[in-house]
Amino acid sequence: MITFHDIELAAERIRPHVHRTPVMSSRLFDQAAGRRVYFKCENLQRGGAFKLRGATNFLFSIPDADVARGVVAFSSGNHAQAVAIAAGIRGTKATLVMPGDAPQSKLEATLAYGGHILRYDRMKEDREAIGLRISQETGATLVPPFDHPWIMAGQGTAAKEMLEETGPLDALAVCVGGGGLLSGSAVAARAMQPEIRVFGIEPELANDWALSFAAGHPIEIPPPTTIADGLRSPKPGKHTFPVAQALVERITTVSEQEIKDAMKFLLLRMKILAEPSGAVAAAAVLAQKLPPDVQSVGVIISGGNVDWDVLTGC
Amino acid sequence: MITFHDIELAAERIRPHVHRTPVMSSRLFDQAAGRRVYFKCENLQRGGAFKLRGATNFLFSIPDADVARGVVAFSSGNHAQAVAIAAGIRGTKATLVMPGDAPQSKLEATLAYGGHILRYDRMKEDREAIGLRISQETGATLVPPFDHPWIMAGQGTAAKEMLEETGPLDALAVCVGGGGLLSGSAVAARAMQPEIRVFGIEPELANDWALSFAAGHPIEIPPPTTIADGLRSPKPGKHTFPVAQALVERITTVSEQEIKDAMKFLLLRMKILAEPSGAVAAAAVLAQKLPPDVQSVGVIISGGNVDWDVLTGC
Repeated sequence: MITFHDIELAAERIRPHVHRTPVMSSRLFDQAAGRRVYFKCENLQRGGAFKLRGATNFLFSIPDADVARGVVAFSSGNHAQAVAIAAGIRGTKATLVMPGDAPQSKLEATLAYGGHILRYDRMKEDREAIGLRISQETGATLVPPFDHPWIMAGQGTAAKEMLEETGPLDALAVCVGGGGLLSGSAVAARAMQPEIRVFGIEPELANDWALSFAAGHPIEIPPPTTIADGLRSPKPGKHTFPVAQALVERITTVSEQEIKDAMKFLLLRMKILAEPSGAVAAAAVLAQKLPPDVQSVGVIISGGNVDWDVLTGC
Repeated sequence: MITFHDIELAAERIRPHVHRTPVMSSRLFDQAAGRRVYFKCENLQRGGAFKLRGATNFLFSIPDADVARGVVAFSSGNHAQAVAIAAGIRGTKATLVMPGDAPQSKLEATLAYGGHILRYDRMKEDREAIGLRISQETGATLVPPFDHPWIMAGQGTAAKEMLEETGPLDALAVCVGGGGLLSGSAVAARAMQPEIRVFGIEPELANDWALSFAAGHPIEIPPPTTIADGLRSPKPGKHTFPVAQALVERITTVSEQEIKDAMKFLLLRMKILAEPSGAVAAAAVLAQKLPPDVQSVGVIISGGNVDWDVLTGC
């Protein structure tokens, strides 16, 4: 379990290295959604996603003695980029285990940030096993994508910044894949505004969290095929699930079409480029999936890294 | 002829009503361009384009006695939206003469801002004549799209803001259609930094300015068909041309493919949604069309209003 103090410490630790991203709003979106909506634009974060927050907090929490042996991470893309950037800042080497079908833009960007890539078959191989093996062979520290207190605390800094800027809100809508962003956001938000309602949003095609909330324990689903490639984690984390279970009111799902519609709305009307995962929380608001008495809501645009063919296929 | 003082007055006049848009930069773009590049993001301006600056300066320069009879404007889109917004701010009615093939998003947005639309056939009818007729019949003041000192002074405020933020630059790259933005920018830039080099950029398919610079006087071309719908004006303005002739070093053209490539780069790498016209100046920089000794350049992203089918056709 992490506390708000962990998030405050993370915020101090990462401040020199991450952008304080803008919070945007739009009368057009408010009209369409029928409520006041604020967007925390982590698509404009370094590396194009919130992931740099957790990765940087992690890299600067590792003991100096371990840092020299490098770090290793497995990721569908944004976490890999974040670890590559954070490792560069910390002055060490990062090896990234990435699925062969990750968006080309994410592979290229990870290389550009100085990361070393090891590709695997998402349908056949176990990325966690590959990551663990490299860690054992080289002594590199494994940087988990979401299921670690340092990662969760780092990701919680985005919601903290947003609420500092917006003031009191009725609710927060946060996408959920492994649960790092959702659990960190929930801890930050409920500490700063105890009455705030926190909603986790995931694709219908990756509904492991909705099933897990209903079951009361983590449920694993087959590898999801949703367009939201950042939310394809098949099960909630051991650390993230109990935090979310305690602090999140509900998990809400959105269809693939609702995700695409939200991407288009954000892009054409607000000039915000969200990747599919980054549009999932906005999709829930736009598609009226939140309770009608939520009059003001903060939405985290989690990232903006999308390939041209994915975008134009929307 | 306008002076820098006119631009300073315009800046004061419009300040309460327009956004001071952000200036962005990107290591990725700098690497690709081989120089330091700053982007003034007028795509994030109210109405999605720089046009609100000139329209607002114009609306607040009209005598009070004339304002009550409303205003009329002809435009391919962004000027229409800007006049609709500015008229709303000034508390009067706007009639907009818009081409039938204007992007649907621009038609819808103009209506949403409270404007009244009159459509015409861009290949057969004369929009200036239609605008003049309405003006004569109703007493409405015609708000020209570019060729008026109040418009030019208002548009010049964008370059002024950019240079206040960036400090000294080697050059400025500005798209040119009718020449309101280019002439205003040139006056502002050369007043603030007498040594700065100003380049006007236009599509090869709308090369009236390049031909006019070569001829030494305004040349009219047939209605252009470039994807950059905001730059389809067939000839330089009477007011804008001599200003640009005096202060602009060169007119440079870019191909349709170069415009599309720049749109993609800005969007995928920098999360900046530029409409085709808005990407024209960036295209010239990315395609190495500026002199090699220009080490730092300011680029105005003039707007971000683009239809989905135009975007996905890039």
